[in-house]
Amino acid sequence: MEEQITYINVRSLLSFCCVLEDFHDPALNINSYFEKPNGHPESLCWSAVWTARADMAAVAKAMSKFRLAVVQLHVTSVKADNLSRARGLVKEAAGRGSQLVLLPECFNSPYGTGFFSQYAERIPGESTQLLSETAKENQVYLVGGSIPEEDGGKLYNSCTVFGPDGELILKHRKIRFQESETLTPGDRLSTFQTPFCKVGVGICYDMRFAELAQLYSRSGCQLLVYPGAFNMTTGPAHWELLQRARALDNQLYVATASPARDEASSYVAWGHSSVVNPWGEVISKAGPEEAVIYADVDLQYLADIRQQIPVTAQRRDDLYAVTSLPGAAS
Amino acid sequence: MEEQITYINVRSLLSFCCVLEDFHDPALNINSYFEKPNGHPESLCWSAVWTARADMAAVAKAMSKFRLAVVQLHVTSVKADNLSRARGLVKEAAGRGSQLVLLPECFNSPYGTGFFSQYAERIPGESTQLLSETAKENQVYLVGGSIPEEDGGKLYNSCTVFGPDGELILKHRKIRFQESETLTPGDRLSTFQTPFCKVGVGICYDMRFAELAQLYSRSGCQLLVYPGAFNMTTGPAHWELLQRARALDNQLYVATASPARDEASSYVAWGHSSVVNPWGEVISKAGPEEAVIYADVDLQYLADIRQQIPVTAQRRDDLYAVTSLPGAAS
Repeated sequence: MEEQITYINVRSLLSFCCVLEDFHDPALNINSYFEKPNGHPESLCWSAVWTARADMAAVAKAMSKFRLAVVQLHVTSVKADNLSRARGLVKEAAGRGSQLVLLPECFNSPYGTGFFSQYAERIPGESTQLLSETAKENQVYLVGGSIPEEDGGKLYNSCTVFGPDGELILKHRKIRFQESETLTPGDRLSTFQTPFCKVGVGICYDMRFAELAQLYSRSGCQLLVYPGAFNMTTGPAHWELLQRARALDNQLYVATASPARDEASSYVAWGHSSVVNPWGEVISKAGPEEAVIYADVDLQYLADIRQQIPVTAQRRDDLYAVTSLPGAAS
Repeated sequence: MEEQITYINVRSLLSFCCVLEDFHDPALNINSYFEKPNGHPESLCWSAVWTARADMAAVAKAMSKFRLAVVQLHVTSVKADNLSRARGLVKEAAGRGSQLVLLPECFNSPYGTGFFSQYAERIPGESTQLLSETAKENQVYLVGGSIPEEDGGKLYNSCTVFGPDGELILKHRKIRFQESETLTPGDRLSTFQTPFCKVGVGICYDMRFAELAQLYSRSGCQLLVYPGAFNMTTGPAHWELLQRARALDNQLYVATASPARDEASSYVAWGHSSVVNPWGEVISKAGPEEAVIYADVDLQYLADIRQQIPVTAQRRDDLYAVTSLPGAAS
């Protein structure tokens, strides 16, 4: 009887913990949710409580890690090929245990202002329908790189994110362009929640704006994803440096997805999609060619880094602030 | 006669340009200060105007560069030795054309909480008196690394800056410590003006806080200096990455000055004092041992980078802001 009650409590505690946004916060000790049942005489109950504690620890440990895959797609001028190859590589990534998969910027179209209007789609449309199905059939969170989006006569560079149920859970429009004659910038900070952690989204040039990453970090993101296509000048100079800077300064994981390099295309992408950990180390990195790379995102490690070098906790909030402004409703 | 008038105008324009704070701003075209003297018949006048334009361009070019030296001092437990060696190396740097010289964190004392109270001084005191004299006798801006400062019964880690006239022009107290049982943090952002550019100052761990550099950059600094002493763990992992991140994100120069590495000391510093340019490249770097390194800070190059990748001009001020708070009177 008591045993039954205890199990019910344990189950509800498990549920409670699973929805905690700050589940992985080092300040929270999972054991603190289990108070010793004062003076209770029933040994079966004790056994259940301790078993539950062990289970909880195992659950906490399991939940603190998840596998991320980045698909560095070889993008061609044939949209149908791009879509089918993307679908196949997401399936491959899921088959290897990935729970979140990231596609590159402009994954359904060659990169370049001359192509955007031709390849642009409304959302929902052909490409996002495929992303939705692919997410659902593989039971993954799918960050769909970006596609040229047409909306109200304007073109955007837009990233869509789908959940394992195939539902669209986020659309991010690239905020800034170095040159923006063709595309219209977005005006929103974009984050989404998963059972693993909160994720912030930027596209390519957005990565140069440190403030975006700072705001995402302050809002609780532990992973930032940047589909992007740096070129053969900015790629070797800045691609990795920017990722490592965002990761170290904000003590979180950063993943980037570039199209594979195609020397024959009008815009030659650098490639080298990467994942960087909160210590600023590159833990997974593609070469220039088409590839799927993998990394285990370890939120306990992230918490450990934040304790080891407590810059996140030690910001001088009396001296400076990074704030989002009313225009940036997230 | 007209020629005379023209020369007077040119001289006053020269003076005007030299005091412009934003002299090196790419938005300002030096030629725009010279309006064509409409319909003036005098050819000598024209000649003078064009000669003046050429002179101005030469002056602008000359003023857009200055030489910076970083003294990576081998710090011992004998304060008098530290001071005299520092004086000698600043003289050496000035002899090689340096106009701004940077000393390391804790240049007059071994690094460690056990030493601070013993080596601490009031300001002015023995060490800062020496800095003042050294700046004056070498006609340089001297960023005096840092010393343990005693004030009102408290200890600070303080950087003093002296002008070529030997006057104290700034005192910066390290804002944040990873552990701060011994030292009291400062509460000010610290910048100083030179004829070359505005300079922002942080000490060691301050470099981890991106906001400080962002505010310095927004206030017009084109060079950030960080005396610092990273250790043998954080040194290889983060010392260079942080400098490159600050430089690239804010499109300015960053210089760091570490004590030389001394394997026999209780705190082993990483060394590798460096200068990084606004493209994020290390342009000068010491090894672990005592050394003076040099770099030419090129403000025209800085302006070119800001035009080439216009992130500084393209911040989305409608979406986010980095602001200093009332506590941070600079």
